[in-house]
Amino acid sequence: MKKNILLLAAASTLFLSPSLALGAPASPDSASVASIRDKALQSDSFAYEIVEGLTTEIGPRQGGTEAEARARTWSVSKLKALGFDNVRIEEYQMPTWVRGEETASIVAPYPQKLAIAALGNSGSTGEAGLEAEIVYFPTIDDLRAAPDGSLKGKIAFVSHNMKATQDGSSYGAFGPARFVGPNIAAKKGAAAIVIRSIGTDYHRNPHTGNTNFDPGVTPIPAGALSIPDAENLERMIARGKPVRLKLKLTPKNVGMQTSGNVLAEVKGSNPDLPMIVIACHLDSWDLGTGAIDDAAGCGIIGAAAKHLQSMGQPKRTVRLLWAGAEEVGIWGGRDYGAKHANEPHAFAMESDFGAGKVWAVDFRLPESASALRGQIVSALAPLGVVPRKELAGGGADVGAIIAAQKLGIIDLQQDGTKYFDLHHTPDDTLDKIDKAELRQNVAAWVATLALVANYDGELKPEAAR
Amino acid sequence: MKKNILLLAAASTLFLSPSLALGAPASPDSASVASIRDKALQSDSFAYEIVEGLTTEIGPRQGGTEAEARARTWSVSKLKALGFDNVRIEEYQMPTWVRGEETASIVAPYPQKLAIAALGNSGSTGEAGLEAEIVYFPTIDDLRAAPDGSLKGKIAFVSHNMKATQDGSSYGAFGPARFVGPNIAAKKGAAAIVIRSIGTDYHRNPHTGNTNFDPGVTPIPAGALSIPDAENLERMIARGKPVRLKLKLTPKNVGMQTSGNVLAEVKGSNPDLPMIVIACHLDSWDLGTGAIDDAAGCGIIGAAAKHLQSMGQPKRTVRLLWAGAEEVGIWGGRDYGAKHANEPHAFAMESDFGAGKVWAVDFRLPESASALRGQIVSALAPLGVVPRKELAGGGADVGAIIAAQKLGIIDLQQDGTKYFDLHHTPDDTLDKIDKAELRQNVAAWVATLALVANYDGELKPEAAR
Repeated sequence: MKKNILLLAAASTLFLSPSLALGAPASPDSASVASIRDKALQSDSFAYEIVEGLTTEIGPRQGGTEAEARARTWSVSKLKALGFDNVRIEEYQMPTWVRGEETASIVAPYPQKLAIAALGNSGSTGEAGLEAEIVYFPTIDDLRAAPDGSLKGKIAFVSHNMKATQDGSSYGAFGPARFVGPNIAAKKGAAAIVIRSIGTDYHRNPHTGNTNFDPGVTPIPAGALSIPDAENLERMIARGKPVRLKLKLTPKNVGMQTSGNVLAEVKGSNPDLPMIVIACHLDSWDLGTGAIDDAAGCGIIGAAAKHLQSMGQPKRTVRLLWAGAEEVGIWGGRDYGAKHANEPHAFAMESDFGAGKVWAVDFRLPESASALRGQIVSALAPLGVVPRKELAGGGADVGAIIAAQKLGIIDLQQDGTKYFDLHHTPDDTLDKIDKAELRQNVAAWVATLALVANYDGELKPEAAR
Repeated sequence: MKKNILLLAAASTLFLSPSLALGAPASPDSASVASIRDKALQSDSFAYEIVEGLTTEIGPRQGGTEAEARARTWSVSKLKALGFDNVRIEEYQMPTWVRGEETASIVAPYPQKLAIAALGNSGSTGEAGLEAEIVYFPTIDDLRAAPDGSLKGKIAFVSHNMKATQDGSSYGAFGPARFVGPNIAAKKGAAAIVIRSIGTDYHRNPHTGNTNFDPGVTPIPAGALSIPDAENLERMIARGKPVRLKLKLTPKNVGMQTSGNVLAEVKGSNPDLPMIVIACHLDSWDLGTGAIDDAAGCGIIGAAAKHLQSMGQPKRTVRLLWAGAEEVGIWGGRDYGAKHANEPHAFAMESDFGAGKVWAVDFRLPESASALRGQIVSALAPLGVVPRKELAGGGADVGAIIAAQKLGIIDLQQDGTKYFDLHHTPDDTLDKIDKAELRQNVAAWVATLALVANYDGELKPEAAR
């Protein structure tokens, strides 16, 4: 690893030197980018204020709920107060699922309560609850291998062995227990399913999150056990006696509800240059106050745009998309993509991975933008941010507009080692925000944004044009 | 600090050398104590097995409940299987309070749910709950200073600034918000009280624990907010608008119920020597599975007694007291003291501070036992355990018998820095146990116990006789 890191550093230097020496003049000049970056690093308070305000004055704000509507109103006030242009709400309708009561207890052979949370789109047990024997699957593949009908009248319990990873990729590797486990169990006839939370902490706070059932499959009750509870249940099962669980989950679908995106802009000086969209999501899951997921992202992009504004008008318009209803199906991002598909965009960035430090930068830019790329790498290096060879992907809320217009993308990658300790849990609260790390993140964003928003060359990658 | 530590080390050396050179012959010899200590350090599994069994097969076991009765049955089997003598239950009756539903929501100006748990002996809001304005007290002293009647119809909110301390003493310093806050608020006419949890973590898991109302004071609903919630509430209050809370706590008193102590013994060879009692408590609070509080203590003393047994019969009888109903009023310890007040005891030790490493040893022994003291200090030194000048106090469950018979005491002190992250919360679960630290703890116990149980001199301090 060390050798690779040294090689990468050497390669960056080789790559940068010519681009700095021979490329187009930096616009804005690198000194002013460094200045605004360092100002953000030392004293940004905009980002924290946004997170503090949203978590304190709104708290949980699930997509489609009245709390999310209050969050939109709050955001309009905040973004106007920050001096952005064209601050507005774009509403849309979406089917909405809301949590009910949720309890789980081992009935036999070792009676005790377990900490559980319903997964988004879970079916209901009804008020009476249901009691059944557990069938244990150490992994989602074991559930996949179960014979059809073998789960009839049983509660499937799917565990996994998710570990924290720096890039957070274990979420993708182990997430299917939640993403598709309930659908698979329902098809095999299970009465209900409980999964080990898709997370990496050891607190009694289950990780919720959406699951989806295929059309025609009746949703079964589906809950996540906290990791200490899942491990306790595994120990009970290992003792060899049948384990019976009493489960009560009473969520319900409340039909089509209003959700919406909040948009704001920093207007560019050149109306011929396609704009940049930067995104976060305003909604959160209902268990925590959505500090890291994703008030932090809204704080980061809001602060970055605010610092950009203080440099004078950028060449390109920068649009802020504080998207609605991401957690429950990316309704805001998809609505944005549909409504703005014909409006010229050049480039997208998204912040939706907490409030921690940026450690790497990934690009998806045309070859012609190599000088810009070099300037960005240079501007990020003093923050401890290194370029990678991974291709930038953007994020959920900019996914639709990227797909529609094949945009250029930069990802400022954050350390994911602790992210899944908090993700979708009651523990996602303001106190988890490290102000110094947040400022570093904002500094990386403002440096990147200042360079991209003032770049008048092509930003869409070749393959996309 | 460093200077003091060095002085202490020097003093210990001076103290030890003569006692080792001139004192009575070690009994048992120091080599066999070192051998049993190191065996426990390297491979003890008894302690972990007890914690694993109690948390998995019983889980929460609140004093006076059916779960605690199951824990007694489990314990009798376990202690018999470990080969102890006179394994038995001693029952007593006690008034029992049990948790009901518990919810708290800010109604205005920033509607959101708060994580709350009722305190033991809390009154009930009734099924309808109650809604009232919050009156904020930054500390318990601010509540004390509030004029009588000033809280009429209001909900008192008492915060504090508890920080983790190595010796855990901040629990005593900040605990009064829980111990007496509700009683004070009730006397001043409050409709209810919520406190910042007496704890040091940042998870959405409130810390429960007993509170007590004076005779004649009607218990008011009294709950603990998790620390993230308490801080969120403080931020709301700081914004200056009246804050209204909707509270539902429906605990109830279920009258006199059966609880009990579980006793077991390692029989001594000399019936003329008064016995040693070593204690933990078998009950736990109802929110967690009571791994660190105090299955760990029962594991530690059980393992220590088991290793002692393997050395052959000790001179003195060692009695294990797995006490009932400590959390809810030290009912087991008091029952033991009352029932065994006339049975000769010489010495007591207790383990009720988690499963972590022992770092210090405190004594309350007669001057005549200085050689024994020196042997113990010597035997503990290789475990990183240092002698202090603090006087040993014993613990809650041996408090009554110590008071009745003025016993000698040794305290093996554990690091308390993280203890109040977990204490009385749902997070007190098996996964918090570090097996290596637990083995060190057992090793310290078995070394101490082997020396004391084979000491035939006086163990009661002079002042006590």
